Amino acid sequence: MKKIYLDNAATTPLDSRVLEAMLPWLGENFGNASSVHSYGRDAKVLLEDARDTLAAFVGALPSEIYFTSGGTESNNFALKGISFNRLGFTPDGEELRKYHIISSAIEHSAVIDSLEYLKNRFGFELIYLQTDKSGRINLNELEEKINDDTFLVTVMHSNNELGVINDIRSISKITGGRKVHLHTDTVQSLGKVRLNMKELGCDTATFSAHKIYAPKGIGALYIKKGTNIDKYIHGGKQERDRRGGTENIAAIAGFKKAIEILKQEMQSDIEKYNKMRSKLTSLLNETLGDSVIINSPPGNETVNPDDTYLPNMLNISFRPEKIKRDPETILIKLDLSGIAVSSGSACTSGMIQPSHVLKAIGYDDKSAKSSLRISFGRFNTESDVEEFVRVLKELIN
Amino acid sequence: MKKIYLDNAATTPLDSRVLEAMLPWLGENFGNASSVHSYGRDAKVLLEDARDTLAAFVGALPSEIYFTSGGTESNNFALKGISFNRLGFTPDGEELRKYHIISSAIEHSAVIDSLEYLKNRFGFELIYLQTDKSGRINLNELEEKINDDTFLVTVMHSNNELGVINDIRSISKITGGRKVHLHTDTVQSLGKVRLNMKELGCDTATFSAHKIYAPKGIGALYIKKGTNIDKYIHGGKQERDRRGGTENIAAIAGFKKAIEILKQEMQSDIEKYNKMRSKLTSLLNETLGDSVIINSPPGNETVNPDDTYLPNMLNISFRPEKIKRDPETILIKLDLSGIAVSSGSACTSGMIQPSHVLKAIGYDDKSAKSSLRISFGRFNTESDVEEFVRVLKELIN
Repeated sequence: MKKIYLDNAATTPLDSRVLEAMLPWLGENFGNASSVHSYGRDAKVLLEDARDTLAAFVGALPSEIYFTSGGTESNNFALKGISFNRLGFTPDGEELRKYHIISSAIEHSAVIDSLEYLKNRFGFELIYLQTDKSGRINLNELEEKINDDTFLVTVMHSNNELGVINDIRSISKITGGRKVHLHTDTVQSLGKVRLNMKELGCDTATFSAHKIYAPKGIGALYIKKGTNIDKYIHGGKQERDRRGGTENIAAIAGFKKAIEILKQEMQSDIEKYNKMRSKLTSLLNETLGDSVIINSPPGNETVNPDDTYLPNMLNISFRPEKIKRDPETILIKLDLSGIAVSSGSACTSGMIQPSHVLKAIGYDDKSAKSSLRISFGRFNTESDVEEFVRVLKELIN
Repeated sequence: MKKIYLDNAATTPLDSRVLEAMLPWLGENFGNASSVHSYGRDAKVLLEDARDTLAAFVGALPSEIYFTSGGTESNNFALKGISFNRLGFTPDGEELRKYHIISSAIEHSAVIDSLEYLKNRFGFELIYLQTDKSGRINLNELEEKINDDTFLVTVMHSNNELGVINDIRSISKITGGRKVHLHTDTVQSLGKVRLNMKELGCDTATFSAHKIYAPKGIGALYIKKGTNIDKYIHGGKQERDRRGGTENIAAIAGFKKAIEILKQEMQSDIEKYNKMRSKLTSLLNETLGDSVIINSPPGNETVNPDDTYLPNMLNISFRPEKIKRDPETILIKLDLSGIAVSSGSACTSGMIQPSHVLKAIGYDDKSAKSSLRISFGRFNTESDVEEFVRVLKELIN
């Protein structure tokens, strides 16, 4: 059975060129980058080259890039590092002061779970902004809710279930004027839209390697120069004393190579994604008509910083009154046919629950359970899309 | 120039069998272990097999093993997870309560840096126990210092600079009777002495893969059943909702293989280390006489749970009145001759500073700067030891 992988938003296959770039660091060049001898120095040079490469690609300074174990750690680092820095406890146990955090209703669990912890364990105040039907936050609501106690706003750049992109540049104008820290999660955006930290105006931003054909277990946090943030993983003085722990050099070599490939191929990747997305949309309309609802915002074919959606993702639901099979069964049957797609995100660890994202854009529990996320990758072809629709139609009828 | 790597306590080369076990997970089997489709299920099976393997090897239940990004994260997770869990803040901002933590003066920076943060930012009380001249803490001092406010004791199993092993079993009798949490860092011990969590009696313990011929970027935390501990990396419900973030499956596959190899070869590894250590000791005595001081505790040739030193490590100093060259120069010259050893640990990121460990066992700043750590690995031979002593003698004379 030919297997078709259409779940690239969950994770991507490793590009063989990335693996090749990693292998020397899994072989002869195994040194600890913090060692002073030649083994360590070789690793250190690679580490700083990788930092330069990522920094240049996202419009940051090398000194603003910190490697972490992945997107989830980066989000924890940013949110808790900023929040704990504001606690201002003294060794004498000065009273806990309350502060105000604003986020959105469609964040990734790495953000929501961190924020809820800050609220429940440390007493921070927390509110979530609602979104419109496309999944974008309302800038006016942000203006209304932000107050003198607000020190942190965190809104994801693109949503991992719908693919909708928030207008971070406009948000940063609101936060910047008030000296409020702005964090954004760009995990799904890297490689799918052009990202420039200076243009976005955010203070911290999260990156993950395994969504761009690089290995799992490596990510980065952009921290704007001059930001006051606590260290999150304490230990050695690695990453300019902001993230302890032996550097994961082989994975960093892979991350570097993946960025170098994006530099060359991102434009053609995106064109490919757009074609597959258009094809999928029209095939679904042709084949299943109004039994299917497209939850992702409509796109255009140009790629620019004003994009409002990711080109590689389409979230769909089935109208329960037209489609008898429940979506869980559809997902399982697709899997049995060798087709991997997702219901919502992979990050709730195997549990099929109503999506908090679809609920935020107005669906009830039942409808929020009936969605499929199809996400394309560099190694998909248009025939994968055709085969997916063919099998889906068969399963539904 | 033949290169000789004698810094295996900093990091180890990847065993080629480990790399082989990783490759499928860096290729075809790239799925996200939290995905429900077949790609995800394959990864999930590997993940749970690896957990079983590590658990069995260290005398724990599979449900007591949590994978992390490495030893440093595991120490942060344990120390902060236990401490924050005791804070007991309410959403109404109940006043910060002070608690008492006891540690030792020779801990790894991942422990010291975490504890200092808990003290300085969150107001925990913190004391360090002194050690005897071999680097072991004094059990009587622990009994004296522990009080009704003490909730956490953290003492490393084996020290990363000296190789001395603390008597965790006796420490756990003191903490266990008082229901005080006992954490121990076993990063250097895994694969060098038999470890059994139940026998040791600790409540949490840290493991790292890259010290046992497995990749960087993966480690684990043992958390004894029934322990109240906060999540540290918040996000998805991975690791039974105790550690969020996409599982680093390829690295976990490598960790698993490294443990399987240890199961077969640990005894022969240890015999080899002991031989090299004896050889090094006698060659140093023969060649350099009393110009050299051996800082590591003397060992015996049997391997059992009562061991008081690691077989693969020897820390030496030079008597300044006898050896004219300063140790930094010796280190650099050894490096130029292709020999990698370390001054202290690698974890202070390239900085040659007086070792806090040597200072704790009674050395002044100058002497604490003049040490070399030689650490053997599976891929060293006795001729590496001979060559090291030959070159060292040449450099000194």
